[in-house]
Amino acid sequence: KMPKKIVRLTVSDVRFPTSLEQHGSDAMHTDPDYSVAYVVIETDQGMHGYGLTFTVGRGTEIVVCAVEALSALVVGKSLEEIVSDFRGFYRLLTSDGQMRWIGPEKGVIQLATAAVLNAVWDLWARSEGKPLWKLLVEMDPRKLISCIDFRYITDALTEQEALDILVKAQTGKQQRVDQMLKEGYPAYTTSCAWLGYSDQLLKQLCTDALNDGWTKFKVKVGADLEDDIRRCSLIRQMIGPHNTLMIDANQRWDVGEAITWVTRLAEYKPLWIEEPTSPDDILGHAAISKALAPLGIGVATGEQCHNRVMFKQFLQASALQFVQIDSCRLGSVNENLAVLLMAHKFKVPVCPHAGGVGLCELVQHLILFDYISVSASLDNRMCEFVDHLHQHFRSPVVIQNAHYMPPKDPGYSCEMLESSVQTHQYPQGQVWKNLQ
Amino acid sequence: KMPKKIVRLTVSDVRFPTSLEQHGSDAMHTDPDYSVAYVVIETDQGMHGYGLTFTVGRGTEIVVCAVEALSALVVGKSLEEIVSDFRGFYRLLTSDGQMRWIGPEKGVIQLATAAVLNAVWDLWARSEGKPLWKLLVEMDPRKLISCIDFRYITDALTEQEALDILVKAQTGKQQRVDQMLKEGYPAYTTSCAWLGYSDQLLKQLCTDALNDGWTKFKVKVGADLEDDIRRCSLIRQMIGPHNTLMIDANQRWDVGEAITWVTRLAEYKPLWIEEPTSPDDILGHAAISKALAPLGIGVATGEQCHNRVMFKQFLQASALQFVQIDSCRLGSVNENLAVLLMAHKFKVPVCPHAGGVGLCELVQHLILFDYISVSASLDNRMCEFVDHLHQHFRSPVVIQNAHYMPPKDPGYSCEMLESSVQTHQYPQGQVWKNLQ
Repeated sequence: KMPKKIVRLTVSDVRFPTSLEQHGSDAMHTDPDYSVAYVVIETDQGMHGYGLTFTVGRGTEIVVCAVEALSALVVGKSLEEIVSDFRGFYRLLTSDGQMRWIGPEKGVIQLATAAVLNAVWDLWARSEGKPLWKLLVEMDPRKLISCIDFRYITDALTEQEALDILVKAQTGKQQRVDQMLKEGYPAYTTSCAWLGYSDQLLKQLCTDALNDGWTKFKVKVGADLEDDIRRCSLIRQMIGPHNTLMIDANQRWDVGEAITWVTRLAEYKPLWIEEPTSPDDILGHAAISKALAPLGIGVATGEQCHNRVMFKQFLQASALQFVQIDSCRLGSVNENLAVLLMAHKFKVPVCPHAGGVGLCELVQHLILFDYISVSASLDNRMCEFVDHLHQHFRSPVVIQNAHYMPPKDPGYSCEMLESSVQTHQYPQGQVWKNLQ
Repeated sequence: KMPKKIVRLTVSDVRFPTSLEQHGSDAMHTDPDYSVAYVVIETDQGMHGYGLTFTVGRGTEIVVCAVEALSALVVGKSLEEIVSDFRGFYRLLTSDGQMRWIGPEKGVIQLATAAVLNAVWDLWARSEGKPLWKLLVEMDPRKLISCIDFRYITDALTEQEALDILVKAQTGKQQRVDQMLKEGYPAYTTSCAWLGYSDQLLKQLCTDALNDGWTKFKVKVGADLEDDIRRCSLIRQMIGPHNTLMIDANQRWDVGEAITWVTRLAEYKPLWIEEPTSPDDILGHAAISKALAPLGIGVATGEQCHNRVMFKQFLQASALQFVQIDSCRLGSVNENLAVLLMAHKFKVPVCPHAGGVGLCELVQHLILFDYISVSASLDNRMCEFVDHLHQHFRSPVVIQNAHYMPPKDPGYSCEMLESSVQTHQYPQGQVWKNLQ
């Protein structure tokens, strides 16, 4: 193979004016403009890798600034050098002796780390001519383990335990690959019931979704209890008793309030309450989990859980019953591998967060890997889907009969169309100029 | 009073090349260049407020970018408007519907929030003609409470409980004010034993410190066990059996490793082990606390604990025995008030983190308030002191006989000398030009 030295990294602030139509609105993010810090790396051989991290408008420029700061640690390295000690390279980015102070491994700098490393993983998968999920599935377990930083999690999962999990799941792997290629990975939809949508629109979207074969639906709640009762009742009526309903409060409540509020919604039989309180509150989620267990309602969280140390504790404290990994909040594939393996050890199903811009494109790879090479189970498992903005990607997700069909193109699926990047650049792109 | 509308906010990237002499070096931050994002706000009456947040070099520009993003929420507001609903204003900054995604309340955006709000508190104190500690001490308890965001902490501390604590501590307040003015607040020194210092330098600095009346000393550990044994033994010999020794690992270890390592250092009788592992690992700190309790060693942490929700859990889980608040990591005075009140409720002493640039100047105000208006106790309490870079401040800390003497100038003590700001601006200041 050719050496592939990374000689350039560029980053763009790309925003979509989704707030104009209340897409993505929830109890805490009332006017999101779905956005990305979009990273392109280029090698001396002219090969490209594409990565991104998701944001919701203002503040994207801060993440862009952080990507620029990290770029000095990437440019000049060869892909071979990086992947021959990916754990070391991960640590280089997350534990820089000066920059770690402004994290560590959280917030802006962690989002930037994800954008940069997503591009590196994309480059790696492209250089092997495989979609990322296939690169992972076919990788030697020892090599996979060497991508993970076990610092701070060895009290929950050792390297040896992680390796044992991967080796054990080699059995039946090819059947699961074939199954996925044929059926795809089960999905649920969040597109019907954003908080800012009218009942009329909700009904229409729900009817359409049922016709398209969807059986699992998520509703945003948390702003007003009477509204929530009306909306949950409406959607439960529409989907019937056998389909699945989930509710999502986007961190709106304190611990006691969460328990009271969700108890009032119990009659609509939600499978889970998502983000009932602060994403940092492990003990709070544990208290809520304990209180809601008798009602048959689980707790789901993770889209704002910023690293493996937090997920470790959520698992140790039985503070969640559904692990919602995020491809851009955690430090890319490396950190997600750690979380998938811990979740398996603690016997908690993983149901990824997706939506926004590009999150569906990215996270489908991780959940395919989880099924094929880690969990070997679909029980209580499904991946979020939101039907927005896929048209801006070169290899958009393919949904068939409410399932994610495995991507076939080489890479991590987050290359955007050049024209989309161009017109949506903030603030100079044509879309934003037209809105002024 | 005149209306004081904030009409301008400027922010500078100010860095000191401390890494050249290994000042501030520890097991994880081997080459810190002590830095600040330095904020100046100006009112239409020509009054100024000064604030900062501390960083250690690279990445400061990212925090500066975040301050610029927050500035739109501040400029145009009057001081009266802000302080008449400070809780609401705090929430405005920390829960902006778009920007909260890149936190929330953690990392870069939280550091930037601290810098901005520190300047607002400085302006408030100046407009009242009082040093900040006095503004707080003389403020009506209800007004103080109205500055705190209780979201996510009501399961540990309600508004009423917080008010009761403040009202109860009104008794004896004037005596404590007089005592502080006379004796000052007890301090300990970290200046003697940075990790990069030679044994020779350590001995010299320790001798000097003993001569200056210091009785409490902190040593950096965690890089090499044999080195640590030698250094702890040396310093314990120098200070004798009755002075106090603390050790600080700056997050170097995993949980099991922390317990083994500190057990080996137990014979030198450290009062606490500081930051034994990841700052996010509440349950890990709880396990370490439990294991070390029989050895008489407590756990201290907090300088990288990013918000009230994390401190709440550290307290709920008995995961620390010393609360180390930070004036720049938490969201300014508002968030620190919440933590001081929770610490009091859970009966855990507060021993602030200081050092760096300006942290001593700022945090002395908070710990004076804690003693006078909250805890009314000095048992097991002391404030960190590091003797660096004070010469760059207009009202530098005054240390007498190893005690912080209460500041007398109006404000929050973090106004820097214009010449210092000028010459240390990064990268264009003269100090940095000379180093190129």
